[in-house]
Amino acid sequence: MISSSIKEFLDVLASKEPAPGGGAASALVGAVGTVLLSMVANLTVGKQKYKESEPLMKELLEEAAKLQKDLVKLMEEDTEAFNKVAAAFKMPKNTEEEKAKRKEKVQEALKGAANVPFQIMEKAVEALRLHEKSLGHANPSTISDTGVGALCLKTALCGAWLNVKINLGSIDDEDFVREYNEKTQQLLNEGVPLADKVYEAVLESL
Amino acid sequence: MISSSIKEFLDVLASKEPAPGGGAASALVGAVGTVLLSMVANLTVGKQKYKESEPLMKELLEEAAKLQKDLVKLMEEDTEAFNKVAAAFKMPKNTEEEKAKRKEKVQEALKGAANVPFQIMEKAVEALRLHEKSLGHANPSTISDTGVGALCLKTALCGAWLNVKINLGSIDDEDFVREYNEKTQQLLNEGVPLADKVYEAVLESL
Repeated sequence: MISSSIKEFLDVLASKEPAPGGGAASALVGAVGTVLLSMVANLTVGKQKYKESEPLMKELLEEAAKLQKDLVKLMEEDTEAFNKVAAAFKMPKNTEEEKAKRKEKVQEALKGAANVPFQIMEKAVEALRLHEKSLGHANPSTISDTGVGALCLKTALCGAWLNVKINLGSIDDEDFVREYNEKTQQLLNEGVPLADKVYEAVLESL
Repeated sequence: MISSSIKEFLDVLASKEPAPGGGAASALVGAVGTVLLSMVANLTVGKQKYKESEPLMKELLEEAAKLQKDLVKLMEEDTEAFNKVAAAFKMPKNTEEEKAKRKEKVQEALKGAANVPFQIMEKAVEALRLHEKSLGHANPSTISDTGVGALCLKTALCGAWLNVKINLGSIDDEDFVREYNEKTQQLLNEGVPLADKVYEAVLESL
């Protein structure tokens, strides 16, 4: 997917193929929000004026590169996880044994399909923490890019959450559902105000 | 840009090249939010169960395809508009005449660089209106895609706004600045609550 052109990706997303869908889209938007941090750091390093920011910016560049790679991988994994759910639903259900086997595989696949967007949420929050760290230390001409980055990561966080939630709705394992509801709530509790804080700080400085 | 791979686009966005930047990123995220509407409509049409929604979905598909094309074009235009500003700043300023000519070209280019993200805002609001129209009529299995679409379009709207605003800050023509401040405020006043409304409706149904 990552090697397909933007045009091809948009066309397949628009199509009646159910995957890639909102989960992969959330990961892509998260990757965009992450690389905007790299751009901000790249436009700050190597300039005499921001010499004091150099160590921080280099650290941010390293962290952002890792997150970019992770989010792009999750974009592919979300589509694979969805396809596993679809394949499990297509399993035969003629006998009691087949029905039980099918149900087991569907439940297993649904857990995978909830876990991938959960990981997208984690990565989005990590990238938001990096954007926050950059505030006040980066080349001021890149401030709007920081703002767009924070917006993208909030969308990735909340968009991925919708995809966790829609899968949790069909999962029977109550402990799993409880655990993921708690963990996603923690990420939302940290990430949403963090994104808003960065965006507001950008707005105030414009 | 549209024919480059997603990997290439992310890498050039991350680089120290100041364009593409947050403006082009906003347009891309807007295009993603728009094609998610197409996906929702494509997964609704042709199904007996949603036959009553068919005419609406076909109308939405047509409108979304236009907006997708526009937003992809604006993605390219934002980079071109930025490059024009950069080129104008590089004009000679040795004589009074050169200084005046340079100032004129910089101001002209800045107006172009404010106008492109303004158009992204307009398209994002148009796409949000379409998502709202789809609520309650689309295949319910696509509801999370509608939610992610609304989030993406809010990011496109607010992200493009930051890019209008950063350019307005350097424009001397007070009438132009007033006009764009008013027009962007109208788009934000309509688009932000609309995106929140669609997202909340999705959340409630999950």
